[in-house]
Order: sequence, then structure tokens, then C-alpha cells
Amino acid sequence: MTAPLRIAIAGLGTVGSGLIRILQTHPDLLARRAGRPIEIVAVTARSRGKDRGVELSGYGWEDDPVVLARRDDIELFVEVMGGEDGPAKAATEAALAAGKHVVTANKAMLARHGFALARQAEDSNVALRFEAAVAGGIPCVKALTEGLAGNAVSRVLGVMNGTCNYILTEMERTGGDYDNILADAQRLGYAEADPSFDVGGQDAAQKLALLSATAFGTQVDYDGIKIEGIERITLTDIRYARDLGYRIKLLGVAAQTGEGVEQRMQPCLVPMSSPLGQLEGVANMVVLEGDAVGQTVYQGPGAGAGPTASAVMADIIDIARGLVIPAFGVPTADLAAPVRSGSSAGAPYYLRLELADRPGTLAQVADALGQAGISIDRMRQIQHESDAAAPVLIVTHGCTRAALDGALRRIGALDVATAAPVAYRIEPV
Amino acid sequence: MTAPLRIAIAGLGTVGSGLIRILQTHPDLLARRAGRPIEIVAVTARSRGKDRGVELSGYGWEDDPVVLARRDDIELFVEVMGGEDGPAKAATEAALAAGKHVVTANKAMLARHGFALARQAEDSNVALRFEAAVAGGIPCVKALTEGLAGNAVSRVLGVMNGTCNYILTEMERTGGDYDNILADAQRLGYAEADPSFDVGGQDAAQKLALLSATAFGTQVDYDGIKIEGIERITLTDIRYARDLGYRIKLLGVAAQTGEGVEQRMQPCLVPMSSPLGQLEGVANMVVLEGDAVGQTVYQGPGAGAGPTASAVMADIIDIARGLVIPAFGVPTADLAAPVRSGSSAGAPYYLRLELADRPGTLAQVADALGQAGISIDRMRQIQHESDAAAPVLIVTHGCTRAALDGALRRIGALDVATAAPVAYRIEPV
Repeated sequence: MTAPLRIAIAGLGTVGSGLIRILQTHPDLLARRAGRPIEIVAVTARSRGKDRGVELSGYGWEDDPVVLARRDDIELFVEVMGGEDGPAKAATEAALAAGKHVVTANKAMLARHGFALARQAEDSNVALRFEAAVAGGIPCVKALTEGLAGNAVSRVLGVMNGTCNYILTEMERTGGDYDNILADAQRLGYAEADPSFDVGGQDAAQKLALLSATAFGTQVDYDGIKIEGIERITLTDIRYARDLGYRIKLLGVAAQTGEGVEQRMQPCLVPMSSPLGQLEGVANMVVLEGDAVGQTVYQGPGAGAGPTASAVMADIIDIARGLVIPAFGVPTADLAAPVRSGSSAGAPYYLRLELADRPGTLAQVADALGQAGISIDRMRQIQHESDAAAPVLIVTHGCTRAALDGALRRIGALDVATAAPVAYRIEPV
Repeated sequence: MTAPLRIAIAGLGTVGSGLIRILQTHPDLLARRAGRPIEIVAVTARSRGKDRGVELSGYGWEDDPVVLARRDDIELFVEVMGGEDGPAKAATEAALAAGKHVVTANKAMLARHGFALARQAEDSNVALRFEAAVAGGIPCVKALTEGLAGNAVSRVLGVMNGTCNYILTEMERTGGDYDNILADAQRLGYAEADPSFDVGGQDAAQKLALLSATAFGTQVDYDGIKIEGIERITLTDIRYARDLGYRIKLLGVAAQTGEGVEQRMQPCLVPMSSPLGQLEGVANMVVLEGDAVGQTVYQGPGAGAGPTASAVMADIIDIARGLVIPAFGVPTADLAAPVRSGSSAGAPYYLRLELADRPGTLAQVADALGQAGISIDRMRQIQHESDAAAPVLIVTHGCTRAALDGALRRIGALDVATAAPVAYRIEPV
């Protein structure tokens, strides 16, 4: 058997400890698969003394991640500290500059600095891998860069934040409202004390930015993503959507359009019978569409020690086996500058309007939609108290968001709506 | 850019033509991803003159696949002729002996000769890859050998034959019986003129044999698979299963037990709400379970020119990038001789009995089950004509197949059953 692959691990939180547990549990199995033993040389974390439930006495210790990253006796640096800048970035840059392979789970860092770091890895002729940064244990970056490498990819989409999917699933299942279910999720450890990064869509958008760059061969463009969170989704809309045969999901979509790449992270309706519509709880799902293969779907746990460490381990084994490919699947010189695009293809929309209960109101609304060039697939007025505003649900035929916004302005000008309209895209899946 | 990867293609049927179409459509994209151009040097097929809808004039031609496989000017041989032995095997052996990488879609050949061919590839220090042999366009071999390489795999299961899944889906959807739906499938091109290889379970079992060897690091053991086809599944049972919340699928399962590896390809019930239960039409689905990652699910098209060629192309690109790993993920010296195992874990069973409508019959059946140590989860007697046999549905709690067979023998001896009992395992998913 050839010489061991010597690695260093920076960060001993959930992922770092999970990784050490895998390496301690299956050393022989991993060596058979990797073609060589994998050996932890040294580790670092913020606090040395803390009990993390794994035995660390056999490994060296460095206080400074940058010093760890540059150690002469390692070939590969695992960055699982997290953080967009600061020590994680400094150590990653130091490792790459010193000619060490880097495996990271750090989506925040890559969403911001992915292109520069990929270039640095290329210059040093080492690998920069990030399977764990995208959808936890699901090997979807590998599916995209390798499994579907023969395809021109047309669209990637998915549910990439388990916290949001848990909240939406539980709202439907229990009939609880957003605030109560969020509080439950926090108690269960599915949501952070400050949940805004998850429920606001930023966490999932960082993952989408990485998938999108990989799928379409562009520089990472996190700022080009239109982001809308789940904070304003009501039980009312979840139930009306269900009655119409849909579920509301926080859906990330990146699509190649004629002009460039469209990137969105927003609540959308998907058919209840589709794989995305069926996805429950904290699971993640990624859908990859290519010109040769058609549609492929990947589902699994999107977070947690075991799944995330499984993804980190896969990247390490790839490198041990000698696989060094560009971080985003093609050389950085071939990564196009991002050209942002709106949605070229129209989509149906779900609209909920609260209308004054006066004769002729519905006709006026239908007329406003018609004037914007939007035809109606289904319209349903919900039974209501006689003196209250009448909830009206509309499913449009395919239209652009611009046309829809035009129609909503016209409807606003009619002075018949008693509340701001709710509009969600129905994503074709 | 480095020198092109020169390949030869043996077989110009659906897959071979599909592969050529991909290579002709995206040469630049493929070169960027592979790090080098991929160039078809020469091809072969049974008949040279046939119009296959792709331009072949730029490529050399060999009449003999073995001669093609040995050509000095190729590095990689694509075997998409098919057939367990004969020219496919001869050419594959010739290619490996001559130090050429081999990419094949030939599950029949690998299910029988996979271990010997893997050893030959290893001796020549070349790759033998077979993503296309397992579940069409779904990159599930890659997920297993690479994406989940950090895991001890406990179980792989799935729906691996689109023809069978189409037939079962359509029987439920249309209420047609097996023979009529099979005839429809043949007209639509989803089933062969002689469908026995698909509906009998052998096609799917070959795929399972390859997945199982890869998952558990054993020599391929096709003969160790207990195979039962879908020919005897009735609309009656499909409907009763649905009423109980299940769907009947031809399910392949390979599981690590205490004693060895259990391999089964048989109709099973799965919960309607599970990903496997939701799978409709000709799609395939593979579920991979590992100790670190938990459960991951992969869905996509299991057959067809584009999907299968996509998988072949991925293997070619991997090799172009320099990835040469053992065919089954670990060196052949580490592939254990197969130890066959029955099911160690019990499972619930679905039973349908046709019982004489006499007082005390149900009690006798319940008693027979109890004597075999099997407890009943649900029992339902279906309304029937007063003088006909009474259909009785039973869902047992978890029990072994041996215990169940014992109970069925006892019930047979009671002389109350008017027809042979139907029993399907309810696979926990």
C-alpha cells in the first residue's frame, strides 16, 4: 500500500468531530477505498480543552489555523471552521499557497470568494473541493461535475435548506402558524437562535450560487440571486395551495436562459405529486436537468454531523485516489463572467386577492389580468362572511413576472383589493 | 490543452449512437470538462451500411471488435454491444489485455464476469467502468464508489427496471390487467417482444448484483440473488395494497446482515408516501444507506439513448481526467468471496387469503399465525358474494420469511383456503 495521505483538520464543531469519528471508525475500509491510509496529523479549533466526544490525543495541535495549513507534514487541509472571511479564508489561502489540497464545507466563504480560491488552487495545481458545502450528505456537486459531465445543463433547482422545509412541512401538518412552528424548530435544534440566515433564504442561496456556477461554468455570482425568504408565508396560503394540488417550498432555481443565467431563491408552488412536492421535514432535494440525461433527482439529509462529514470524507478520498479537477468542473479561465438574466420562460402564478364584496369586482380583476396579457387557468372565490372581504384564488396560465407585476398594478388601481395581493410562482418541475 | 483522449466505440445501437451524438454536439464543452479533447478514432457494429442517424464518415471502421479493441491508436474502448459472452466479452478482454481503459454498459457481461474482468483491468493498471450498466442516466455507481465512499453501506435498494415499473403503475392507473398493459407497453416500445428478461426480474437482478458487489466489497454474485418477477401480480392485490396505503414494486434489495449479504429481487409493498412508493412510469430509483450519511435517494431515467449515453460519457470523462479506481471501488484482492445470507431482519408481510365462508375460519387462521409466532397488525375481511370464498387481507407485524412459510403451511393444512395464499414482503423504507 502506498504512503498515507496526511491531513489536518481546522474546526472541531459538528462537522470536524463527525469527520474524526468516521476516520476513527473505519480506518481499514477507508484505506481500501482510498488506495492508501488516511492519517490525521494535527487539528485546531478555537478552544483546545473542550470535550467533543472524540479522542484527540493522537493528533498534533496548532493554535493558529494558518500555521496548521502550512505544515510541511500535511498534503491536505480540511477547513470546517466556517465564516465568510477571517481565519477560514486566511487558512484556506495559506494552504493553497503552500500547495496543499483543500476540502471545505464553507459555503459562505465560497459564495463570496469561490472564484478567487479556485484560481489559487489551479495555480498551485491542487484540488479545492466543497461537496459538503451544498446539500449536506447528498453527493450533488459530484453528480454535476462528474456524473452528468456529458450534459449541457439547462436547470438546477431544489430545496436546499432543511430548516425552511421543516417549518413549511410542519405548518401544513399541524396547522400551526409560522411563529409557533419556528419556535418549535428552535427548541428541537432545527433552527438557530437567530434564524434569519435560514428563513431569509441566504443560507440556501449560498448553496445555489455554488451549484449554479458549477452547472453553467460561470464565476460564482451570489449577489445575482434574487432572494426571498419564507417569513411571510401564511398557513392560509399553504392550505389554499394544497387545495389546488400544490405545496409551497423555498425553491432555489438556476436556469440557463438565452441571455445568461437566471438565479432565484424564493417560495414557489410545486405540484404535490412531484418529488419536490413530496419532500418532507429537514431533508434536502436537488434536481439536475441535462440535455442528454433529462431530469435526475437527488434526495438526502442536508445537514448534521454524519451527512456533512460523509461529504467531506468523499472529497478527501477522491484526492487520496489522485483526482484533481478544477473546483467548478472547468478551468477558471473558462468560467464566464456572470451575465444575469431575468426569467425568460414564463410560468403560471398563484394569486390570492382579498376583494371587496361588491358586484362586478371579479370581472374587473379578470379584465385587468386580460389587459396585461395574462389568461386565467383557474379562479375560485372562497366562501366568506357576508360583510368581509372575499378571498379570491387565481391560477394564471404561463406569464412573465413583469406582466404579472403590471397586472397587479392595474388591480391595485381598481381600489377593490382590501389587502396587498399574494403572488407565488408555480415552478414547472 | 493536453493530447486528446482517443477512443473506439464497439456497438452502434441506441447507446452507441447516443454517445456519438453527445460527442458531436458538445466537443468544446466536453474538452473543457475533461481537460482534453475526446476523439473517436474508429467504430464497429454488426452492419456497416445501416443508417443510424449520426454521421460516421469521419471515423475509422473495423469489422472485428477484437481488432478494434487492440488498435494502437486508442486509449479507451467503449463496449456497448451487449451480450453476456461472445464478441462483447472477447473484445473487452482484448482491450484490457492491450492496456486500454474500458467503459461498458453491459450488465449481463459484468453480472457474470465482472470480478474476472476487474482483476484483468487491475493487472493492466487501467480502468473498467460501468455506470451505464446499472440505472441508466442516474449516477448511482459513482454515488456509491465515490460520493458515499466514507460510509459503511448497510443496504442498497431500488426500482431498477422501467418496464416493470411502467406496467405496475399503469395497472393501478387504468385498472387494466397485466396482459393488456404488457401488450400496451410492447406497442409503446417500453417492453421487448420477448419481455421475459424484464418482467421476470433478471434484468434488474443483474443491476442489483453490480450495486451489491460495489456496496459491500464482494465478488459479483448474480446467482446468489433470489429472483421473482412481476408476472403473477394481479390488479386485485395492487388495489388491496393501495387501500392499505402501499404500492407494489419490483424491488431489488441488497443488505449486509450479520452472516453475509442478502440479495433479493422480488415484488414488495412499500408505503405509498415513500419516494419508492411515489415512483411512477419508466423511471428508476436507487436508495443508498450508509452509516454516516443515513439514507440518500437517486431518481432518473433508467434507459434510453440520451440517459445511457450520458452515463457512458461520464465514465469517459473521468478517465480523461485521470481517475483510475478499481472497478468495484476496492482492489479485487479485497473483494470478499460472497457469503449468501437470508433476511436477518424480519419484515411485515401482506397476505391475501381466499377462505371458505364458514364460522370460525378467521379464528383458525389467526391461531395458525399465532402458533408460528406471527402477530397480526391488521386483518380485513372484504365484502363478498354470500356463497363465494371470502377474501381476507392480513398485514403481519415483523416476522421472518421462514416463520411466515411455516404459518402458511399450517393454514394450508386447515383446509379452509380455496386458493393459494398470496404473500408479499413489506419492505421498510
